[in-house]
Amino acid sequence: MISEDLKVLIDNKTKPPGSLGMLEDLALQIGQILETANPQLINPHLVVFAADHGIAKAGVSAFPQEVTRQMVLNFLNGGAAINVFCRQHDIHLQVVDAGVNYDFEDSLPLGDGKIAKGTASFLHGPAMTAGQAELCLLKGEQVVAEIAAKGCNVIGFGEMGIGNTSSAAVLMSLLCNLPVSDCIGRGTGLNDEQLMKKQEILEQAIANYQGSNDVFQVMAHFGGFELLEMTGAMLAAGKRKMIVMVDGFIATAAYLCAYHIDQNIKSNAVFCHQSDEKGHRLLLTHLGAEPLLGLHLRLGEGTGCALAYPLLKSAVNFLNEMASFQSAEISNKSL
Amino acid sequence: MISEDLKVLIDNKTKPPGSLGMLEDLALQIGQILETANPQLINPHLVVFAADHGIAKAGVSAFPQEVTRQMVLNFLNGGAAINVFCRQHDIHLQVVDAGVNYDFEDSLPLGDGKIAKGTASFLHGPAMTAGQAELCLLKGEQVVAEIAAKGCNVIGFGEMGIGNTSSAAVLMSLLCNLPVSDCIGRGTGLNDEQLMKKQEILEQAIANYQGSNDVFQVMAHFGGFELLEMTGAMLAAGKRKMIVMVDGFIATAAYLCAYHIDQNIKSNAVFCHQSDEKGHRLLLTHLGAEPLLGLHLRLGEGTGCALAYPLLKSAVNFLNEMASFQSAEISNKSL
Repeated sequence: MISEDLKVLIDNKTKPPGSLGMLEDLALQIGQILETANPQLINPHLVVFAADHGIAKAGVSAFPQEVTRQMVLNFLNGGAAINVFCRQHDIHLQVVDAGVNYDFEDSLPLGDGKIAKGTASFLHGPAMTAGQAELCLLKGEQVVAEIAAKGCNVIGFGEMGIGNTSSAAVLMSLLCNLPVSDCIGRGTGLNDEQLMKKQEILEQAIANYQGSNDVFQVMAHFGGFELLEMTGAMLAAGKRKMIVMVDGFIATAAYLCAYHIDQNIKSNAVFCHQSDEKGHRLLLTHLGAEPLLGLHLRLGEGTGCALAYPLLKSAVNFLNEMASFQSAEISNKSL
Repeated sequence: MISEDLKVLIDNKTKPPGSLGMLEDLALQIGQILETANPQLINPHLVVFAADHGIAKAGVSAFPQEVTRQMVLNFLNGGAAINVFCRQHDIHLQVVDAGVNYDFEDSLPLGDGKIAKGTASFLHGPAMTAGQAELCLLKGEQVVAEIAAKGCNVIGFGEMGIGNTSSAAVLMSLLCNLPVSDCIGRGTGLNDEQLMKKQEILEQAIANYQGSNDVFQVMAHFGGFELLEMTGAMLAAGKRKMIVMVDGFIATAAYLCAYHIDQNIKSNAVFCHQSDEKGHRLLLTHLGAEPLLGLHLRLGEGTGCALAYPLLKSAVNFLNEMASFQSAEISNKSL
């Protein structure tokens, strides 16, 4: 019923039908999610989950593991890209320690999601226990529950974790049944030789894996704490009828896991950008997702969500503010 | 000198080099245009030039000519898409009557650019005289001079004119030396049969043309008043070291004319989006331009500029506000 109302409303705005392109689809989707023909975006939030990865020690990243901790402090000091873009668009930023290999001071304004000080390397065994994986989903859900209690109805998710493109690539490979060579990319900046080494390590890890393709088992074996908390957070946001902004490669891998657990998440998901990380285009295609932006970003942190957010506002604004052909007395009859 | 400073500044921000993709190129370009490593976007403006086209009467558009006038009144009443997006981003909107087939009341807040009440049809003769074409360039320049006097350093241009994709398609065909069939599209919504008729009419108009490929002669013969005033405005904005936001197909055709007159305009131009109007992708490729957005817009009015504007702000903001590796004490050494 709402969908029909929205379609009529959109088609009667003073523009040729369809001429606002993806903004029209977005307005329809937002209206459907919020179940109103006059949607408002309320108290937007972006949550960055940070964690370390045992696999990083195998040499799959261009940057050392300590950068995860350093970047968390950068987020808290307001100096990272995601801080800048959230400030620009009045998006509330929350950073959650999902499992950084460091003991942060208790006084820091960090969300509590800590599972352990980094995962184990998934090269020769599981990254985490089944219990830890469950706890990740629960922690992610709790973070969203607290934010939803503030009236927020639109939320994006970002991540920080040296080594996490490796985790995301293996999850994609196993859940989409694609060769890992199609799923990996240069991450923060690997050269050709390092990229080849990354591929060999990940192929070895998959060869060593004795488990099934069950999503929970795959997630526990190859996941990162930040990745799985994001999955839990997305599922919780979907259930609460929030708009879920999906960022780049790692966030889309978290979404892939969420989608395998509950396909209903799809109706809540807005794909914010297509990253330059190689596997992302293929993953989006696999999911049938058409992202809003294609700016060749490959930073993570949720930056694609923050940069796309004004487009969500534009979709809502044209729906609420544009004149109709009738109200503006404009001919909408074709010749 | 500024360019080197900017590159060092951008590469030292706390992110993997290049990971902000097109925003990094944009930050560099904006810094170069404004000749500073700490650029600020000041008093952004968007000018919509409106005019009517004699060719519209030949049946090249899905909407009747009176829609130009009706939409101008819609702009002045704040009900069009461009009003909504300019309000969202605090962009000052100015509407200029370049030659609408209507006598507007003097009391309306319309910029004065009126050349005549619509062009003649270019099917059997020139759309305007050489003198009118020159006057267009001058009027466009005057509009920009007044806006520049207010301190504005970033300006976008939009248009409204039933029939103007036909004018733009022929300009593109002649100035790029491409068959008109590659340059035309459905405009506001032609069906297959109407599109074929549009192609036949434009091919006939080109066959009837006895002039040269001189840009001024082509512009006068096939141009629209709004299109040529936009060309004059772009050239003036370039000379004044302003950032010039280029919108969709018609605005890019105006840019094409400007580029043929003075190639220096290229360094000032930010291509805001790739429209769904068929010729636009080819025209952008011809110009070597990579647009910021690809949202399947095809509305005109400068809507692509207004929607892309927050990305220009993001580029400036990350340049001015992000921490450096040094200031944030983060490892930027690759392993």
